[in-house]
Amino acid sequence: MSLPDFRSTITLPVQWSEQDLFGHVNNVVYFRWFESSRIKYLEQIGLPDLMTRERIGPILAAIGCNYRRQLTYPDTVEIGSRITRLGRTSFTMVNAIWSQRQQTIAADGESTIVVFDYNSQKPTPIPDAIRTTIELFEASNKK
Amino acid sequence: MSLPDFRSTITLPVQWSEQDLFGHVNNVVYFRWFESSRIKYLEQIGLPDLMTRERIGPILAAIGCNYRRQLTYPDTVEIGSRITRLGRTSFTMVNAIWSQRQQTIAADGESTIVVFDYNSQKPTPIPDAIRTTIELFEASNKK
Amino acid sequence: MSLPDFRSTITLPVQWSEQDLFGHVNNVVYFRWFESSRIKYLEQIGLPDLMTRERIGPILAAIGCNYRRQLTYPDTVEIGSRITRLGRTSFTMVNAIWSQRQQTIAADGESTIVVFDYNSQKPTPIPDAIRTTIELFEASNKK
Amino acid sequence: MSLPDFRSTITLPVQWSEQDLFGHVNNVVYFRWFESSRIKYLEQIGLPDLMTRERIGPILAAIGCNYRRQLTYPDTVEIGSRITRLGRTSFTMVNAIWSQRQQTIAADGESTIVVFDYNSQKPTPIPDAIRTTIELFEASNKK
Repeated sequence: MSLPDFRSTITLPVQWSEQDLFGHVNNVVYFRWFESSRIKYLEQIGLPDLMTRERIGPILAAIGCNYRRQLTYPDTVEIGSRITRLGRTSFTMVNAIWSQRQQTIAADGESTIVVFDYNSQKPTPIPDAIRTTIELFEASNKK
Repeated sequence: MSLPDFRSTITLPVQWSEQDLFGHVNNVVYFRWFESSRIKYLEQIGLPDLMTRERIGPILAAIGCNYRRQLTYPDTVEIGSRITRLGRTSFTMVNAIWSQRQQTIAADGESTIVVFDYNSQKPTPIPDAIRTTIELFEASNKK
Repeated sequence: MSLPDFRSTITLPVQWSEQDLFGHVNNVVYFRWFESSRIKYLEQIGLPDLMTRERIGPILAAIGCNYRRQLTYPDTVEIGSRITRLGRTSFTMVNAIWSQRQQTIAADGESTIVVFDYNSQKPTPIPDAIRTTIELFEASNKK
Repeated sequence: MSLPDFRSTITLPVQWSEQDLFGHVNNVVYFRWFESSRIKYLEQIGLPDLMTRERIGPILAAIGCNYRRQLTYPDTVEIGSRITRLGRTSFTMVNAIWSQRQQTIAADGESTIVVFDYNSQKPTPIPDAIRTTIELFEASNKK
């Protein structure tokens, strides 16, 4: 079993050092995992190339996490990302973390990502090519 | 100038290494700062002593952050915590990050913290002494 | 190809966030990788059990790293640990980091680890059972 | 009291999250502190400007740390850097960490830093202006 309904996932081992004095994975680590999954997703839709070519890239406007299970070392987590809303200049991404040991979702969260023109220093409409890529990507077979 | 309306704050220098490839402080660092400020607050109201004595302690149920300004090295940030809601077994904490260089709030966020009995592994009512301490602490003079 | 001559290795993907403003994996990350590999090794020889049972555990006395190649995201690294010297109360561990993308050793280093009695707060002789386990473990077939 | 014999120092509070499951500051954190101090030193001698102007900058070739005292939260540490050897294309930096609570040196270490020409991708002689600045800087009054 693993994360259902996520077209893009990454798998990472929990590191011993990711635990804090409470004996479970520290709350901040979950955001590092969200980030690694988010970057993988954005690579899959070609956003970094656009950043390199035209200096249009993602900026995180807001992010949150709901902690549902404590995690401990050793474990392996699968982190999923999917885009659930496409606005004019921003989109919403949903993340979830699956614990292989507990066979359940350990945390989930949502973020708002703005497409930003680093030349004009202003939000810019999501380019049509990116919009279409996201729609096709999300519509393709999930696991 | 600094963070108004926060009874509990900590001050930290931005580290060079806290910047990521985008050239600004990485989004995850804000949650580390929230945590350092939160722990300082909880110390001020005596929650860690309760943890040591009776194994009753805080567990983070949810946290979020709104990014309002990009931060860069060098800068010094002031991070504030205050409790805005006291429920039966949980409370709400608000955090804010002040940039000394930009003289403005760079980010803010909210978290839900559950008071947890580690013996029974269940949420437990906020002890009266802690509840009163929080009320008095929040009512005392702000900066 | 991978790390030769190491009986104990772990494999980790490079995270995007492990890069710093210079555009390569930050120097501090290598020590995190050494640690994750070291803990895996110590688990394999049963040191954590001894820690739990008799409060005898490892303490790092010194560690160093030689940086031989710059690493960048994406890549996968294999980190090896082996014990090259068994003293009376301490031992020497050698670590190496293999880059799958560059097919070469990106860094290596050496550390001195003391076996510490947390009851008496003093170094203590390496228990015979641990000593024998290490010797057998190191003598068994390498990859 | 504080770190003697260091012309360049920074002061940082120990963060709660910098402790690991052993209940003391994690070994990796010391290298983060060395880095923050090293960057401050290099700023003081003007190396980052040279990086921006001519793409000549520092690369860490090797670094080590000797752990002399366990550190715990709360504490404040002072981290010092000084250059003890100027070679043709590299120099040696010594670091030390002072614990305000224990009033003693908690760790020290040494690193080899190469001056690197990012255009030719080769080590390059330390520019005369930088060499003189370092000599004057180190000769000026210590604390």
